[in-house]
Amino acid sequence: MKALVYHGPGAKSLDEMPKPILRSSTDAIVRVSKTTICGTDLHILKGDLPTVTAGRILGHEGIGVVDLSGAGVTRFHAGDRVLISCITACGKCEYCRRGMPSHCEDGGWILGNTIDGTQAEFVRIPYADTSLYALPEGADEEAMVMLSDILPTGYECGVLNGDVSPGDTVALVGAGPVGLSALLTAQFYAPAKLIVIDLDDNRLEVAKQFGATAVVNSTDGKAVEKVMAMTGGKGVDVAIEAVGVPATFNICQEIVGAGGHIANIGVHGTSVNLRLEKLWSQNITLTTRLVDAVTTPMLLKTVMAGRLKPTQLITHHFKLAEIIKAYETFGNAGKERALKVIVTNP
Amino acid sequence: MKALVYHGPGAKSLDEMPKPILRSSTDAIVRVSKTTICGTDLHILKGDLPTVTAGRILGHEGIGVVDLSGAGVTRFHAGDRVLISCITACGKCEYCRRGMPSHCEDGGWILGNTIDGTQAEFVRIPYADTSLYALPEGADEEAMVMLSDILPTGYECGVLNGDVSPGDTVALVGAGPVGLSALLTAQFYAPAKLIVIDLDDNRLEVAKQFGATAVVNSTDGKAVEKVMAMTGGKGVDVAIEAVGVPATFNICQEIVGAGGHIANIGVHGTSVNLRLEKLWSQNITLTTRLVDAVTTPMLLKTVMAGRLKPTQLITHHFKLAEIIKAYETFGNAGKERALKVIVTNP
Amino acid sequence: MKALVYHGPGAKSLDEMPKPILRSSTDAIVRVSKTTICGTDLHILKGDLPTVTAGRILGHEGIGVVDLSGAGVTRFHAGDRVLISCITACGKCEYCRRGMPSHCEDGGWILGNTIDGTQAEFVRIPYADTSLYALPEGADEEAMVMLSDILPTGYECGVLNGDVSPGDTVALVGAGPVGLSALLTAQFYAPAKLIVIDLDDNRLEVAKQFGATAVVNSTDGKAVEKVMAMTGGKGVDVAIEAVGVPATFNICQEIVGAGGHIANIGVHGTSVNLRLEKLWSQNITLTTRLVDAVTTPMLLKTVMAGRLKPTQLITHHFKLAEIIKAYETFGNAGKERALKVIVTNP
Amino acid sequence: MKALVYHGPGAKSLDEMPKPILRSSTDAIVRVSKTTICGTDLHILKGDLPTVTAGRILGHEGIGVVDLSGAGVTRFHAGDRVLISCITACGKCEYCRRGMPSHCEDGGWILGNTIDGTQAEFVRIPYADTSLYALPEGADEEAMVMLSDILPTGYECGVLNGDVSPGDTVALVGAGPVGLSALLTAQFYAPAKLIVIDLDDNRLEVAKQFGATAVVNSTDGKAVEKVMAMTGGKGVDVAIEAVGVPATFNICQEIVGAGGHIANIGVHGTSVNLRLEKLWSQNITLTTRLVDAVTTPMLLKTVMAGRLKPTQLITHHFKLAEIIKAYETFGNAGKERALKVIVTNP
Repeated sequence: MKALVYHGPGAKSLDEMPKPILRSSTDAIVRVSKTTICGTDLHILKGDLPTVTAGRILGHEGIGVVDLSGAGVTRFHAGDRVLISCITACGKCEYCRRGMPSHCEDGGWILGNTIDGTQAEFVRIPYADTSLYALPEGADEEAMVMLSDILPTGYECGVLNGDVSPGDTVALVGAGPVGLSALLTAQFYAPAKLIVIDLDDNRLEVAKQFGATAVVNSTDGKAVEKVMAMTGGKGVDVAIEAVGVPATFNICQEIVGAGGHIANIGVHGTSVNLRLEKLWSQNITLTTRLVDAVTTPMLLKTVMAGRLKPTQLITHHFKLAEIIKAYETFGNAGKERALKVIVTNP
Repeated sequence: MKALVYHGPGAKSLDEMPKPILRSSTDAIVRVSKTTICGTDLHILKGDLPTVTAGRILGHEGIGVVDLSGAGVTRFHAGDRVLISCITACGKCEYCRRGMPSHCEDGGWILGNTIDGTQAEFVRIPYADTSLYALPEGADEEAMVMLSDILPTGYECGVLNGDVSPGDTVALVGAGPVGLSALLTAQFYAPAKLIVIDLDDNRLEVAKQFGATAVVNSTDGKAVEKVMAMTGGKGVDVAIEAVGVPATFNICQEIVGAGGHIANIGVHGTSVNLRLEKLWSQNITLTTRLVDAVTTPMLLKTVMAGRLKPTQLITHHFKLAEIIKAYETFGNAGKERALKVIVTNP
Repeated sequence: MKALVYHGPGAKSLDEMPKPILRSSTDAIVRVSKTTICGTDLHILKGDLPTVTAGRILGHEGIGVVDLSGAGVTRFHAGDRVLISCITACGKCEYCRRGMPSHCEDGGWILGNTIDGTQAEFVRIPYADTSLYALPEGADEEAMVMLSDILPTGYECGVLNGDVSPGDTVALVGAGPVGLSALLTAQFYAPAKLIVIDLDDNRLEVAKQFGATAVVNSTDGKAVEKVMAMTGGKGVDVAIEAVGVPATFNICQEIVGAGGHIANIGVHGTSVNLRLEKLWSQNITLTTRLVDAVTTPMLLKTVMAGRLKPTQLITHHFKLAEIIKAYETFGNAGKERALKVIVTNP
Repeated sequence: MKALVYHGPGAKSLDEMPKPILRSSTDAIVRVSKTTICGTDLHILKGDLPTVTAGRILGHEGIGVVDLSGAGVTRFHAGDRVLISCITACGKCEYCRRGMPSHCEDGGWILGNTIDGTQAEFVRIPYADTSLYALPEGADEEAMVMLSDILPTGYECGVLNGDVSPGDTVALVGAGPVGLSALLTAQFYAPAKLIVIDLDDNRLEVAKQFGATAVVNSTDGKAVEKVMAMTGGKGVDVAIEAVGVPATFNICQEIVGAGGHIANIGVHGTSVNLRLEKLWSQNITLTTRLVDAVTTPMLLKTVMAGRLKPTQLITHHFKLAEIIKAYETFGNAGKERALKVIVTNP
């Protein structure tokens, strides 16, 4: 089968690979019909993630059709249309039972990381019963791909952890796909103000279309000043960090108001300076989270009900045969005005 | 001054009454500019509320302008435009400090009940600092009147107590003004389905315009059957009771699903039969609440942000001089297609 | 093997039965070393539970040793000492994933109900990975038997659902084994007052030893009056119903204070009269729950830490061969001063 | 009257000062009967708090008797025995109504900071109705002094914010008076393990007597290693920081397990290095808080019920005339084995 294979830092190719086989009775083999590329895949390609070794098929998002299922899989059968979760959950360990499968003792984020992933014609899904979701009748397939990772990530790490509530003033730092996912799902809770901060005017324009009530281009280094002015000096109720560098974290800690929340989504490569000499008395809550994707069933319902429109996030379409080109487009997101790209098989 | 006075069961008139005076240093006198009539006022007129005695000026909703304030009032001054809360909060007692001023030891719902109310040219507001809210610049005055009672009631007793959450299936029994307030504010939380049940097709039509995803006319006694069919036999996540009679409570307990919530808003005059022989094992939560109106500041923000449009609830306008006619219209809500009526002074 | 078999209303015997065999790859066969009898077993014997048919082996509590496990069982192996949960959880369905396995689509309370149970030498446990717990090194086996059902029931349905909190005044109606389990676990949360109400002076004496700060014998029909006096007329923060009849439910609804909780544990056979004409404005929360047994891992930790001493609940010991006598003793709990009886195999 | 006056960095004396007078109708003058010294007072004396200016009477804890009350004070009268909260709450502003009076717009921590404090014969208490608590009949006066600041601080900032729950493994870094207050109140929630870390063996010994299940002397720099070993490499559920320096914060962030909480109590003078490159994916929650003292009424109940014994924290007694000596003793806490000192007037 065709698959996008990582060959070490900077190197990838669309290779012919063996079709995956069942290794455990709880596995399923899924024929991938649509997948996408994540910012994390770009990090892998830079060599930032030592857990990913050469020869690995990338990708942790997608939908498809069950091709084969192990004897222990009871909820899915060959022919079922399924959504693949980026998080593999054994459903049995302490962490899965605490609702935190991101730290599953035999799963978590392993697809396209420590086991082969979804940017291929077929993929093996361990613990299929608790790592796949049935696609509802009439579901828009492209919308569903957004539920593998990006929407649960924005929602769980940003909106839920940030405790976005009706009437709140929310600031979102970073208008990339994950930040925009937080922007879309924050609107589940009727915040009064949704301020989006980014360096790219195009993305800020998109943010406005997606529901931002104000946008701030932080190129001039005055984002903190501007947000404080917008909030009468009080700061925001919730600051969502969706970039993953010290500068954006810093904006968050400068603009959060007394009693407020900082919800970190960003994948950070270095430590940050936490201003406890100021914040110790500010009654703030700071959270981090690797997505658990436990809200996928709920998000599915909101999509089917028309309350959430994930296809807004999709800007480009490719065939699996063109996936190298898809990576180029996604890798030049600013210039290409790319958010999420859909890769279809065949 | 002119005021609507209760003269015992069935009797009311627009009388000339003495203008109220300050009785305590924490009182304010407010010149009422707009008020409205509540379903509770109709109950009072039937003689259902023994706490209300003949001679009482009715009304517990309204906005106005501070005319005079006691020496102990620090947050409001003559000339300030204010929203009057239906709940008087001393701000000091155990209940106020627990966030439950509905049971304030020296307040609670007293306006138009145990002390004179707002259907008058002027009203005395005890504990003004904690019972009035400043009207924001540019606020729509008629929208604000809806924040005195009806919107906090629908929101706190129905939506918050019912724990309406994204993706939920919610059923609302009773599409009167309070039920519709719950319908509007339930949408703060992106439920997937909002089923409204009533006997009146006109009100169901209004419910649809207000965001109901399905409506059920229960005249045929088949509401339970229909809701169970709509939910694949599972029942709803949240059932909100907004009528106050055994029949509507019964619908709620028959349609609530395992793990679901019944949130009672209705003012009940008799006990109900609770089917514990079925419900004991259904992991349900049943709540009751007299509105605390502690969410008024939050609701104000959502109105100012355009997320909530309370003027949808207003169907008729009268002058204070015409308040008897306003009562007639509101008392014949079905025929008049009346929801809330605004009474303006002068 | 020997097993206690139900033969229809009023009829049971210790019979020779075939040893259970694996029926699914996720099953385990457990050799039962200790089991106990539950009040529910007595209900079954009266014929109150139509789901239990003649020929059924009773029992849903116990500990034992894994004898055999299916190919799909990954967390337990032959020879492992295990605690059997009264709730069978598939771990995959909507309800299991919501943390509510009491309503598991293929499990829930089935042991000794719709499938054969633990009052036998061996028992088949479906979904063993998510329905058994490993006994920690050094665990007291008899203490562990109390974690199969009774302690999670008192804790989840009474204490957690009742939201018992530090400083609270808690009333517990019914000092049987489940009520006493709620009494023990309520002390996890440092309530200020723990008032226990029962008809039996012996049980009230036990309640005092278990931590009740006051006891009320309700034989004289004055329990409500007395509790109201003890609370300065305010009522209690939490009322836990642990009997299951209208009279005890009624005590709860009469003594609950404004803003308080009624947590129902009792298995009710008839409906009750809910005084909504009084309670609609009292801001109360009423909950029901079939135990989910999701807190078993946490309870295990508190037992191992010495914070909870479940053996206090054990009054009698029998061999499996004497189980008919064990039933007699447990069935005459009042006269025998019996709480929980341990039945040991062999 | 006699009062302990701050005269700039390093300088204090017991001076004759004018007796305070009522400045607002909501003030009360309290004759202080018992006060104490806080670690914050030592910081002030070092000149660390620029808000405190020369001439200020120090102290923000104490109990006493109302001497005089303004016309607007309705809940307290001359002769009432009262507990003085370290937090002054106007009861009216946005923050007070959110339950966060630490940030009260006209109050917060002002006693012995921006207005004169309690280390004096008399003290003026603004907003007396919402800043004083009635001492219950039979209350132990010395126990009550511990409720002014130290116990609410340990409880709110450490235990509540850390979400200490039954069965948890909790680590507490710093066994000074505030840390020990967190240790005492953490036991409200039946944690399985309470590990206390400090540099001082005497304090660790005290911690054991107060309920620590394990203690770690961190002088050897191996605290992290030891705690990880104690938790099987998983880390703790809750890490409470009760010192306020980078080294102790660092221990917390190294020992917190996936899904765990870091609750900061310490007053930090410098920023810390937050290891987001590791923590971003660990699903942690980090909180800060200036005590709100909103749990004082609840703590009062637990003390009266005998569930909390604050007098354990008291090691020394002085007369107000000896307060300079009291400062010396408290300032040499290590050598003097001092926790809290009681200063009695007269």
